[in-house]
Amino acid sequence: MNRITATYDIESPVGVARAAQVLAGEQSTGTFTRLAAETDALRERSAARIENIQITGTSATPSLPCRKTGDSYERGTVTISWSLENFGTSLPTLLSTLAGNLFELAELSAVRLIDMHLPGAFALDHPGPQFGAQGTRDFLGGHKGPVIGTIIKPSVGLNPSETAALVQTLVDAGIDFIKDDELQANGPHCPFDKRVAKVSRVLKAHADKTGKQVMYAFNITDEIDQMWRNLDLLEKHGGTCAMVCMNSVGLTGLRAVRERSSMTIHGHRAGWGIYSRSPDVGISFPVMQKLWRLAGADHLHVNGLANKFTEEDSVIAQSAKSVQTPVCDTGPAHIAMPVYSSGQTIWQIDPARCLLGNDDFIFCAGGGIMSHPAGAGAGVIALRQAAEAARRGIDIQEFASQHSELKAALKTFSRPDIRVGHS
Amino acid sequence: MNRITATYDIESPVGVARAAQVLAGEQSTGTFTRLAAETDALRERSAARIENIQITGTSATPSLPCRKTGDSYERGTVTISWSLENFGTSLPTLLSTLAGNLFELAELSAVRLIDMHLPGAFALDHPGPQFGAQGTRDFLGGHKGPVIGTIIKPSVGLNPSETAALVQTLVDAGIDFIKDDELQANGPHCPFDKRVAKVSRVLKAHADKTGKQVMYAFNITDEIDQMWRNLDLLEKHGGTCAMVCMNSVGLTGLRAVRERSSMTIHGHRAGWGIYSRSPDVGISFPVMQKLWRLAGADHLHVNGLANKFTEEDSVIAQSAKSVQTPVCDTGPAHIAMPVYSSGQTIWQIDPARCLLGNDDFIFCAGGGIMSHPAGAGAGVIALRQAAEAARRGIDIQEFASQHSELKAALKTFSRPDIRVGHS
Repeated sequence: MNRITATYDIESPVGVARAAQVLAGEQSTGTFTRLAAETDALRERSAARIENIQITGTSATPSLPCRKTGDSYERGTVTISWSLENFGTSLPTLLSTLAGNLFELAELSAVRLIDMHLPGAFALDHPGPQFGAQGTRDFLGGHKGPVIGTIIKPSVGLNPSETAALVQTLVDAGIDFIKDDELQANGPHCPFDKRVAKVSRVLKAHADKTGKQVMYAFNITDEIDQMWRNLDLLEKHGGTCAMVCMNSVGLTGLRAVRERSSMTIHGHRAGWGIYSRSPDVGISFPVMQKLWRLAGADHLHVNGLANKFTEEDSVIAQSAKSVQTPVCDTGPAHIAMPVYSSGQTIWQIDPARCLLGNDDFIFCAGGGIMSHPAGAGAGVIALRQAAEAARRGIDIQEFASQHSELKAALKTFSRPDIRVGHS
Repeated sequence: MNRITATYDIESPVGVARAAQVLAGEQSTGTFTRLAAETDALRERSAARIENIQITGTSATPSLPCRKTGDSYERGTVTISWSLENFGTSLPTLLSTLAGNLFELAELSAVRLIDMHLPGAFALDHPGPQFGAQGTRDFLGGHKGPVIGTIIKPSVGLNPSETAALVQTLVDAGIDFIKDDELQANGPHCPFDKRVAKVSRVLKAHADKTGKQVMYAFNITDEIDQMWRNLDLLEKHGGTCAMVCMNSVGLTGLRAVRERSSMTIHGHRAGWGIYSRSPDVGISFPVMQKLWRLAGADHLHVNGLANKFTEEDSVIAQSAKSVQTPVCDTGPAHIAMPVYSSGQTIWQIDPARCLLGNDDFIFCAGGGIMSHPAGAGAGVIALRQAAEAARRGIDIQEFASQHSELKAALKTFSRPDIRVGHS
């Protein structure tokens, strides 16, 4: 199959079928007056095709302000396909085509890109994750189970020495993975090079002393040339992970990092709400994560179950699973590692594992570690115990009866209401 | 003033004042439990400050789905400031901070970034447009008046020879500027290198014969390395303009093009609807265009008055003017050239010029040129006549009485209803 397909949830004052034609036309051969050069042969070769239409409802008012008006606004899903001939396997032009001017069409009073299928040529032409879960485990010295991580907090404000001191506390607690906050990149108060030097010294001393390799995701987010210099610096200090704020650098920035990286790429999705927050405009995570994986992200943030933000658990579940689903219909699967974070405690490990069916995920907790009554070290142990219970299919409360750290954590952290729904 | 300020239009179930605190906390020192390391000194140095709050209304229901609920949802604008110490003048980290996780906060049932002020350090640390309006005129051989342009249509489907044949027709018609469609970059059916070779030959022959330099914006949108190779190729063929789909390549991709470009950068905003379409989430054009100008765009698409999309004329007017306003409070102004397009005819030239007060804009028409009853050549002449009338402050109908091409155009194209509003 040499066609790219995209599914949109749309609403229209001119009806879903007519709106689908406008969308397909605008995003391929069309213009507002059909020109002489638009021959039948050209249309046959290059026009986008409507593959499927499903009407899902009607409302009396438009969901978004709309230049065109109607007596009613019909809603439905439409699937449209394009030939590979139109733009090949270019990811930026894929975006310009499937997620370009169409969001502004006056014939649409709602438009979300909710699904996308790519021919195997994309999986072959793009590098994909260089390391994935197995490579991450190798960097950690053969780590088993989910990777237990945390984030440097306060988000911004610590200088390099203060950051290194906090890292010392966290590695002493037995953590596997630490990440910079997305707000902390290379500010005057905490320059990247000084932070890398100080933190790397702590990580190395810890490895020399205990044999344990801790992965630190340094936030290299910056202009392309600077990100490449940051990668060089990290390599010199034995770095194993580079974090990139994907929306802040853009798709080609992520791909440029992948081209020069000898370490895992930790994909942070700051700004994601622009795409996800409205039910009436945007792009779904299952679509966007395919682009990020093709461009080379090894780890992808998916939010956490019962998080402090707005996404519902069913969305988190879908997002996490999507990252472990083959990226194209054929070709290399390019599986990445989902990263859970935001208000996570021992309670979320079992459901987070359950929906994936494996331990190939990173589980980041902040207060969920630091607020353990017996300290951060017990906080990390409790999370590992919760992960072991989940892996062995033992009820967490039953398992806690033999494991004091988990028992204390269960008493400390209140049980969230998690509703993953039908999976 | 060494602080960055951002203004948001927000709605909240916990009240605007409380929501502003959450937003400021989340985007600077905060976390969901205040940690020991978050000292008063650190907060004083790094915490974002609330500078202003204005309540604008209240509604009984949330504008967007929201995890937190309230008896009512208060709406207002809040202005928040950050110290340059937090992240310096990095554009990607500016985005991660001002337009990062905040869009997902459960305390916000609507959140749009509507204004941003940057200290002069940004204007000094970033290249800005290399050529702007004057440089564009120089490439055109000293062109006066607005630059009259058009877009290759059908959007996609013509091969390199067919594209070159259409370019011949357009240069024969006397056009100043031609651009690729955003859907046409480097597809198998119309490879970039072959298109550049064929089109450049037409442009050169035309210049040799008539002395007129026509600018062609070749769509170089691709991965970084490939965009750089595309620039090299264009330079070899005497190219004067490279078009970039800014949302498809991302901010760092645009900046990477600027670093290597010897020609004007034509900034296309395909995908803009994701940021603009909802009144309840997103980023305004006056904010985003500052980032694009700092990164180096010479030309910026602003849609057109009475366009075929959804933006209202008052938004277009604000967008066009913003591009010609100094980018920071001090330092180099980094003015870019607004590009009007979408359903444009002789009717839109006067109001488009009027709101700027100058001719430093590109005016793209498709049907507005090709559908002139006396042909494309007369179509271009009619647009120049309309521009002259606008510049001289003469009513278009009166001016048409002495100018037959304009007269015919006025009869052919129906007069749109334009409502720029208070300027």
